[in-house]
Amino acid sequence: MPRAAYIQRKVATFDIISEEGLCLIEENADRILRDVGMVFQNDPEILDYFREAGADVDGETVRFEPGMCRRIIQASAPREYIQHARNPDNNIVIGGDNTVLSPVYGPAFVHDIDRGRRYATLEDFRQLNRIHQMIPYLHHCGGIVCEPVDVPVNKRHLDMMLSHIIHGDRALFGALIGSERAEDSVAMVKILFGDDFVDRNTVLYAVSNTNAPLVMDDAMSGSLKVYARNNQAVACTPWMITGAMSPCTEAGTLAQLLAEALATCALTQLIRPGAPCLMGSFATAMSMQSGAPTFGMPEAAKTVLAAGQLARRLGIPFHTVGSLTSSKVPDSQAQQEGTMSLVMAVLAGANFINHATGWLEGGLCTGYEKTIIDADLCGKLIRFCEGLDLSENAQALDAIAEVGPGQHFLASRHTLENFETAFYRSMVGDANSFEQWQGEGSLETAQRANRIWKNLLAEYQPPPLDPAILEELSDYVERRKASMPDRDY
Amino acid sequence: MPRAAYIQRKVATFDIISEEGLCLIEENADRILRDVGMVFQNDPEILDYFREAGADVDGETVRFEPGMCRRIIQASAPREYIQHARNPDNNIVIGGDNTVLSPVYGPAFVHDIDRGRRYATLEDFRQLNRIHQMIPYLHHCGGIVCEPVDVPVNKRHLDMMLSHIIHGDRALFGALIGSERAEDSVAMVKILFGDDFVDRNTVLYAVSNTNAPLVMDDAMSGSLKVYARNNQAVACTPWMITGAMSPCTEAGTLAQLLAEALATCALTQLIRPGAPCLMGSFATAMSMQSGAPTFGMPEAAKTVLAAGQLARRLGIPFHTVGSLTSSKVPDSQAQQEGTMSLVMAVLAGANFINHATGWLEGGLCTGYEKTIIDADLCGKLIRFCEGLDLSENAQALDAIAEVGPGQHFLASRHTLENFETAFYRSMVGDANSFEQWQGEGSLETAQRANRIWKNLLAEYQPPPLDPAILEELSDYVERRKASMPDRDY
Repeated sequence: MPRAAYIQRKVATFDIISEEGLCLIEENADRILRDVGMVFQNDPEILDYFREAGADVDGETVRFEPGMCRRIIQASAPREYIQHARNPDNNIVIGGDNTVLSPVYGPAFVHDIDRGRRYATLEDFRQLNRIHQMIPYLHHCGGIVCEPVDVPVNKRHLDMMLSHIIHGDRALFGALIGSERAEDSVAMVKILFGDDFVDRNTVLYAVSNTNAPLVMDDAMSGSLKVYARNNQAVACTPWMITGAMSPCTEAGTLAQLLAEALATCALTQLIRPGAPCLMGSFATAMSMQSGAPTFGMPEAAKTVLAAGQLARRLGIPFHTVGSLTSSKVPDSQAQQEGTMSLVMAVLAGANFINHATGWLEGGLCTGYEKTIIDADLCGKLIRFCEGLDLSENAQALDAIAEVGPGQHFLASRHTLENFETAFYRSMVGDANSFEQWQGEGSLETAQRANRIWKNLLAEYQPPPLDPAILEELSDYVERRKASMPDRDY
Repeated sequence: MPRAAYIQRKVATFDIISEEGLCLIEENADRILRDVGMVFQNDPEILDYFREAGADVDGETVRFEPGMCRRIIQASAPREYIQHARNPDNNIVIGGDNTVLSPVYGPAFVHDIDRGRRYATLEDFRQLNRIHQMIPYLHHCGGIVCEPVDVPVNKRHLDMMLSHIIHGDRALFGALIGSERAEDSVAMVKILFGDDFVDRNTVLYAVSNTNAPLVMDDAMSGSLKVYARNNQAVACTPWMITGAMSPCTEAGTLAQLLAEALATCALTQLIRPGAPCLMGSFATAMSMQSGAPTFGMPEAAKTVLAAGQLARRLGIPFHTVGSLTSSKVPDSQAQQEGTMSLVMAVLAGANFINHATGWLEGGLCTGYEKTIIDADLCGKLIRFCEGLDLSENAQALDAIAEVGPGQHFLASRHTLENFETAFYRSMVGDANSFEQWQGEGSLETAQRANRIWKNLLAEYQPPPLDPAILEELSDYVERRKASMPDRDY
């Protein structure tokens, strides 16, 4: 399958609620914004933006007249935009019928079947960068592909950005937490792309999570401001364990989710009209036994499908999450939950899918084998999104007539001409007979995946990078790290 | 989750091709039926039916004028019908927005993690019957849940039917191969339900596979005739490994599939107008390396979604297949492939999904643990099909106002009132922390599933059955078995 910069979907979205239902959710979101409002903590500058725009600011609570946030967003937020990569072949178009798949974000632990589960290190980070770069079905470098816990917390973002730039040539994430780290991300991409280019073009993607219900803290609003001011993309993503951080019903969760997304997307446009923003959705149920979050469940599926519909009506790109699971290992639970989750994200018409590969253990851990197994699903879904070919060749009427009843198509001209590209070729699945499989050692999927990521690492070649730029970036990182004491927060 | 007799879907189907595309496929199917025709082997009676109806019969090849089969089907085939179970609470409505989930069909081997893979026996058959009966997410007894290889081939159908009737009280399959075994199936349900009841009502479900391309042999047409004559349901199901038995393109496969389904469905209506028939679809890609069939692949997904659309336009119920995989064990490949496959069958609007649980190794094997893991997915999809509740309670506006920004919903009145039914509760998934999971023995999903099927067997109680009927059935089986020599075909 050819390596493409992003998916251009030729299949429909799956719409789970009616027009009437969507209007109801939108009305409820407006009522929440008018009657309850949203709290922006410790950030008076943001309150000023909202006050100037005509919102009702009461302490740190901001309330909005119905329709106000939607009008602000629709007046200037782009329906789609380009995120530039350092290799222009990897530029991605975010929005419309396009989908971008990005690897796992945020885990503190890594897992592979040789070494088990352990704290992640900067070396894991670099290995994952290399593996991701080799996977043809990913479209984005990702961000915190794992937490390099051997680096002080306040300096990790510098090493991570440098590692991404060195090891991959796809589009980049900016650091999410705090204005200072966001400024570092912008400074580094300015070295990479040039100051003017960065101001005129989007080269960074960032997620801004709310603290549901209805709160955004200054760590998030701080980085949001930096990215919006610099014309970089922000996916405004309410983060909800439903039943704890939102009602335990989908309709209630959706209204709250939309309210939070509307207020935070509007903020990006008040800071810099026209800066790219996405409506994000991360809503998952919890276990009724333990209160632990669960993933790939039917409630999450329904919610993400409806959230996609709401984003399309709002007219901005839709961000959500991919192959999620609470399994601790790359076993059948992991794939049942992850497949439900990623398939639904794709059917929801998501324009950006974070955590498309590698997620384990509710996001606390990423797996080397899980990455490969998930990547295979990404490949399948990329193929699915191509839709159904109705060309004369695909109709194959002549072939059916030529072969005739009771014969086989294996040696037919049509099959020989189409065979090589006809079917998706699985990276890790084993379709052989039991006897062949047994003869090859009775390997489970994770064992085959283990060989594959090792092969990818062995075959990996770093993409070319101007040595002068690399030196400047390395100097920046060194200088910044030397300028501050180590901190673990 | 309450045990329901079948799924009444409140979500839409996922339509992958346009009206225009559907018309094209239909036109191509008509051209195939007119120009190539379909061969019915060794069954002159069937040729007479077709000749009388006005088809062009040339040797064993039958050709049809465009639209002819469709007209025959639409004149009498029911859009939906009831299949009666011996427990009327388990009667199922097949057609419309309803979906019935049925376990695996046909495997010669069984697998569990204690004993590995081995030939299936009658005792396995009975154990699987008991497990299926205990699973709340299945709606049908199924048929050959495994091949009891310790019973002579020509007598298995008798022991299997008796085991189904003894161990379960859901709706039944009839034996698929040959008129004699079909007659035995009908005779046995007549003992169970009464002669008149069986003639007036549908109590058996059977699949009639073509030998693609465009052939039906007398083993299949023989049983098809028996069931149709007796007003029992036949799912006319072209069985295709694409690239071998149909073109390696979806559009070509769909036209051939529709042609075969049209001819065989029409046959049921010529035999007995009004007898229930379904359009079936079983089309899967193959490995380009080995020629082995593959499952859960994107091409199969697209094909089943389009086949569902074609069946709805034809106006009869749609039959397809569920959680398929070529994996040899219940690992992550099994669930990635199986989940893709079952999710797509549900989104295709299938009215009957065969092999919804337990399939391994391309259908050669069924797994005890796989059955449990798949059943969990069935439960999730049943919940998904309930759609998105938009009631005032689900909207939860008061709860959102009451809780307010930055607080949590765990103790809110709304959560307490809705908590117990709010979320699907996974049978086999583990959402606990790594430490809890480790403390409980670091079990993989298959190990937890192993405990579950053993618990189900321990808790199993046979449903009540009139001893006089049981005696009559046992006598019938004994008499029929004594009447013929053992045969291994």
